[in-house]
Amino acid sequence: MSELDYIRWIRSQTPKAPRVLLGPGDDAAVVDWATGKPCVVTTDMLLEGSCFRLAEAGPYLVGRKALAVNLSDIAAMAARPVAAVISVGLPRQGGREIAAELYRGARELADQFETPIVGGDTNSWDGPLVISVTILGEATDRGVVRRSGAQPGDWLLVTGPLGGSIQGKHLTFIPRVREALRLHEVADLHAMIDISDGLAQDVNHICEESHCGAVLTAEAIPITEAARKMSDAKSPLQHALSDGEDFELVFAVSREDGERLPRAELGMVKIGECVAEGLWLEECGVRKPLEVRGYVHEF
Amino acid sequence: MSELDYIRWIRSQTPKAPRVLLGPGDDAAVVDWATGKPCVVTTDMLLEGSCFRLAEAGPYLVGRKALAVNLSDIAAMAARPVAAVISVGLPRQGGREIAAELYRGARELADQFETPIVGGDTNSWDGPLVISVTILGEATDRGVVRRSGAQPGDWLLVTGPLGGSIQGKHLTFIPRVREALRLHEVADLHAMIDISDGLAQDVNHICEESHCGAVLTAEAIPITEAARKMSDAKSPLQHALSDGEDFELVFAVSREDGERLPRAELGMVKIGECVAEGLWLEECGVRKPLEVRGYVHEF
Repeated sequence: MSELDYIRWIRSQTPKAPRVLLGPGDDAAVVDWATGKPCVVTTDMLLEGSCFRLAEAGPYLVGRKALAVNLSDIAAMAARPVAAVISVGLPRQGGREIAAELYRGARELADQFETPIVGGDTNSWDGPLVISVTILGEATDRGVVRRSGAQPGDWLLVTGPLGGSIQGKHLTFIPRVREALRLHEVADLHAMIDISDGLAQDVNHICEESHCGAVLTAEAIPITEAARKMSDAKSPLQHALSDGEDFELVFAVSREDGERLPRAELGMVKIGECVAEGLWLEECGVRKPLEVRGYVHEF
Repeated sequence: MSELDYIRWIRSQTPKAPRVLLGPGDDAAVVDWATGKPCVVTTDMLLEGSCFRLAEAGPYLVGRKALAVNLSDIAAMAARPVAAVISVGLPRQGGREIAAELYRGARELADQFETPIVGGDTNSWDGPLVISVTILGEATDRGVVRRSGAQPGDWLLVTGPLGGSIQGKHLTFIPRVREALRLHEVADLHAMIDISDGLAQDVNHICEESHCGAVLTAEAIPITEAARKMSDAKSPLQHALSDGEDFELVFAVSREDGERLPRAELGMVKIGECVAEGLWLEECGVRKPLEVRGYVHEF
């Protein structure tokens, strides 16, 4: 199959979407932005062997994940996704089938979140599979939620249980776009981030940007079944604190908002509070420094 | 160096830009779009060994090229670039120096075209270097120029000489953003494309999308010195017709516009005309079918 045939196929698969003024097949895509709302843009690249194992995950779930991690970043800004572009570097062996399955995985999630795939770039090469997605979103009327607005006294909450995502959730998670938009409507979100590096690391990101500290309550942190079943040297709590790729949201709101949030309805759990400085874990009433561990790319 | 240190460095390097509401360092970047103008989005991925040779080009020119090919796509729509995001997969060996040089090359061109780099994703892996850029642009008040509006009788023009870009121009070309915007002001551009696959192939793209044909005049096609000096089995004209990555623009305008365009000032050359059907080369007054050859990714 040539790239041109593939683009033809993509074009035949692409449904009409109201804001897509020009879809795949020209030098660029054109998306209606008559709202005048700020454009929120995020990009993530997934690399075979480093971010996924193709033989285990299969191309369908890799395509899905490439879209999902970007949707999760849009969610972390409490923005609404609008359109996506996808670039791939395909291995020569089996590239055609991989391309079709990648697209199918990305497309199914894109459809669920009404985020049309408007363009991309398809290459083949002698290297392993690489896929790079960029998503455009738009801020709601309430603006975006940054990492930098948390204040001492704020409550910290998460959207779901944590840890052990390597057992499967890192491929199949549902990005918290809807939850973020709903939260943004009903509360004044001071700061928010999606948990990609690990809870401790990502809370630390909020603290650094907000120039405050945080204390997490060990007993309150929701832990997945997957983390409980992992049979290694780490405790389930350690998994929940340091495993990457949970893709839940952690956010800071005032105590008042925290108390009146319909937490049960939204599946939210309070895990701690912001303080003046330091990063702490409180366990059985004893406060100890929390080591920031999580996944960090070194180069 | 960790990804976090690199992001800190990028943030320290990033100048304030009026439309960048939020730059690198959060979950996504935010770009002001109060104009309400359509968002033009394009993405291109460059892969080591397939799209460039790192040892020959060096990371500075690779970074520059990754930005340039995307700016060229924005130019081909006659749009104005607004912001860029850059994702990279770095080889473990020398990744830090490569990252810094890639960024420097991309940044210099970005500055020239007032296109702030607002975000990205930096990874290291065991594979070769890969870089993926997405650029957001905005349509001018005249809208975008597609591939699909050419009509029989239109003149076809190019913005500069063609062929032999492999000798260096494919790395050092200046994307025709300014020329495209100027042309869009002074003429009614029916169709436009940037020459990435080769002149014949790219004129064929215009013809397919416009449902028309074209006849190119062999004697009129401007040929680079580089193409004239290539000592292989192909003639200089064949190089100009089929070499990829010239990144000049080819466009269709009415005969009236073509005659009154300040062609010399803008460095434009008429190379042929649109006809009802077929793709032809007229040489010494004799019209022959023009074979479409150029670079096409197969997978």
